[in-house]
Formats: sequence, structure tokens, C-alpha cells
Amino acid sequence: MRTIQTPDAPPHTGPVPQAVEAGGWIFVSALFGADPQGHAIPEDARGEAEQLFANLTAILAAADADLSHVVRVGIVMRNLQRDRPEFNKVWAEQFGDHRPARSAIEATDFGRAGENARYLLEVTAYRG
Amino acid sequence: MRTIQTPDAPPHTGPVPQAVEAGGWIFVSALFGADPQGHAIPEDARGEAEQLFANLTAILAAADADLSHVVRVGIVMRNLQRDRPEFNKVWAEQFGDHRPARSAIEATDFGRAGENARYLLEVTAYRG
Amino acid sequence: MRTIQTPDAPPHTGPVPQAVEAGGWIFVSALFGADPQGHAIPEDARGEAEQLFANLTAILAAADADLSHVVRVGIVMRNLQRDRPEFNKVWAEQFGDHRPARSAIEATDFGRAGENARYLLEVTAYRG
Repeated sequence: MRTIQTPDAPPHTGPVPQAVEAGGWIFVSALFGADPQGHAIPEDARGEAEQLFANLTAILAAADADLSHVVRVGIVMRNLQRDRPEFNKVWAEQFGDHRPARSAIEATDFGRAGENARYLLEVTAYRG
Repeated sequence: MRTIQTPDAPPHTGPVPQAVEAGGWIFVSALFGADPQGHAIPEDARGEAEQLFANLTAILAAADADLSHVVRVGIVMRNLQRDRPEFNKVWAEQFGDHRPARSAIEATDFGRAGENARYLLEVTAYRG
Repeated sequence: MRTIQTPDAPPHTGPVPQAVEAGGWIFVSALFGADPQGHAIPEDARGEAEQLFANLTAILAAADADLSHVVRVGIVMRNLQRDRPEFNKVWAEQFGDHRPARSAIEATDFGRAGENARYLLEVTAYRG
């Protein structure tokens, strides 16, 4: 098992890696649309979704992979009905013709208190 | 990575496949107990759980697999205490002696607004 | 696919195995910090988190693995802000330098009604 870390995506607090790789599979830890340096969450949903994909792209690159290797995305939103339409637009722009499996649920909290994060992604990729 | 699609299970709205296959593993997107044609959710919990398994069976068949290949099921319910007993009966009938790993949580929403869906499954299968 | 069962961790009610193994991967079913014999949840957060890791260690041992094989942990808490600090302390003590991918969300219920369970873990390990 190999730990993936890059300064081009936000670090986690505590002993949590950005991702790990084992047996050709990449597991990305809870991914937020925070700025890699200042750690702020963008004020608008589109900005947050775009930063989310920028962070994911950076982490995958550090694992010698890209968005075309993503096989599964678990999406958690604080307000699904409100924030899904904008997320889906950015998803389509970023993934293009690539079609990972996905599911989306709403949760009351996912660990960025006081920051109003809208989205958390849990991503699995396969490099083979 | 291969995208799995079958007319025998409900399609997703937007660019979401029913499932993908990579490296012998099958990842099924958010699975609902909706009718493949009319997309309605059955009125009773048993009917919805049975349709859920019918949809899963159809998707796995399109990936050259069946229920005996399922290794992990993540279950999301809108009302766990109310709807789990009926779900568990159908689970036992459908899986028989097969024993996938599973977990179940309750969520306030999982994306079928106004339809009163009780269940969402996230399924991983291994064909080898 | 192989079913993992050990008397050193609490059993599930119904037809749910403690874990399954397929293709070198281990999928642990919903893991609680309950006592293996009496099935009680410890009264304090630290005790519950320690029992959670004791149960996980026992299940992994029954699959010829240990904590160093864990690649991904999905964490569900009933009250994330209240119960995460204590959980994180035990996590660091138990995993030491090992760094699995992880995400944490809050859920209103995860199936141990009337027992006030604080934590549910969903664990994936890779033995290769």
C-alpha cells in the first residue's frame, strides 16, 4: 500500500492521507472543494464543484492517474435538491464522455463545521 | 473500464451508467426499486424491495454476473426502523445462502424527490 | 468469495457475515463497538472506539490480515462534532504510522436503535 500526497490539493487535518494505492486501485479520502493553500471553500456552488475536480485531478496525477481512471464516485451533499443541478453541470464538463458509477446521498454533516461545504466526494479509481 | 447498460433496469437521468466493470469488479450506480419502463416506485415496501433485486439482477446479467457475485452492499434507507424488516425478508429470499458484506444507514434524502423511495443500494460484485 | 466469521467479534443479526474476502480484498460489514459476548455498547466514546478496533482486529485476524492491510475506512457518526475528537485519538493510537484513506459523515440512524451507538465503520482491506 502506497500513500499519495500532493501540495496541489488541500491536506487533511490529522493522520489522513489524500489517497492510498493498493493492487492498482486508488482510494481517495474525503474530498472537499477547498482551496489547496488557504483551505477556504468557494462561496458559490459552481466554484466549489470546480475546485473539487481540480483537487481530484491533482491527487490522481500524484498517483499517475487521471479522471479517465475513475470507476466509482460516492457523493455526499448537505442539500441535495439545492446543490445537485450545479454539481451535475460541472461533472459533465469535467468527465466528458467518461462514465463512472455514482450514487448521491444527503447528510446533515460531513466534517467541515462552520465552513458551509456543500460537497464531499469519495472516489475510487483503477489504474490496473 | 466498461460501461454496463440494460433496458431491463431503469436508466439514470444524466450521464450516469447503471454500472461499470474494471479489473473483474463491477460497481453498480445508485440502485432504486423503480419500474424499468414507467420509473414508478412501488407503493409498498415489499414491492419496492423486490423491484430493487429485479433491477440488480438485470444489471448484473448485463455484466455476465449474478447475485452470487455480490460481495458488498451499502444500503441507504429514508426510515431505517420502519422499512428494514421488510427489506431483510426480501434480502433473505433473494440471496438465499449467499452472504455479502453489508451496512445500512439512514439518510434524509437520496435523490428521488417527491417519489418516496424507501431504499437506495450501492453494490459491488466480483466476477474475477 | 469466502465468508469470514469469528466469535471474537460481535455477530450480526440475520444473514449478515462479519466480513467477506474475494480476490485478495476483504470487505467488513457494518462494524460497531459492541462487546463480542454481551453485545453492549460501552458508555463512553473512548471505550466504544477501542472496542471497535478490537472487533476489527479480530475480524481481520480471522481473514489472515491485520490493521496494516486496511486501505479505506468509511466512518459514520451519529454526532460528528461531539464524537470525532475522541475517535481520532484512538484511531492514531491503533493505526500508528499506517495511513488508510478515510471519510466521515453524520447519519441520523444506522441500525442500533435504543443503544446509542456513536460509531459505525465500513472497512476495506487488501491482503494481495
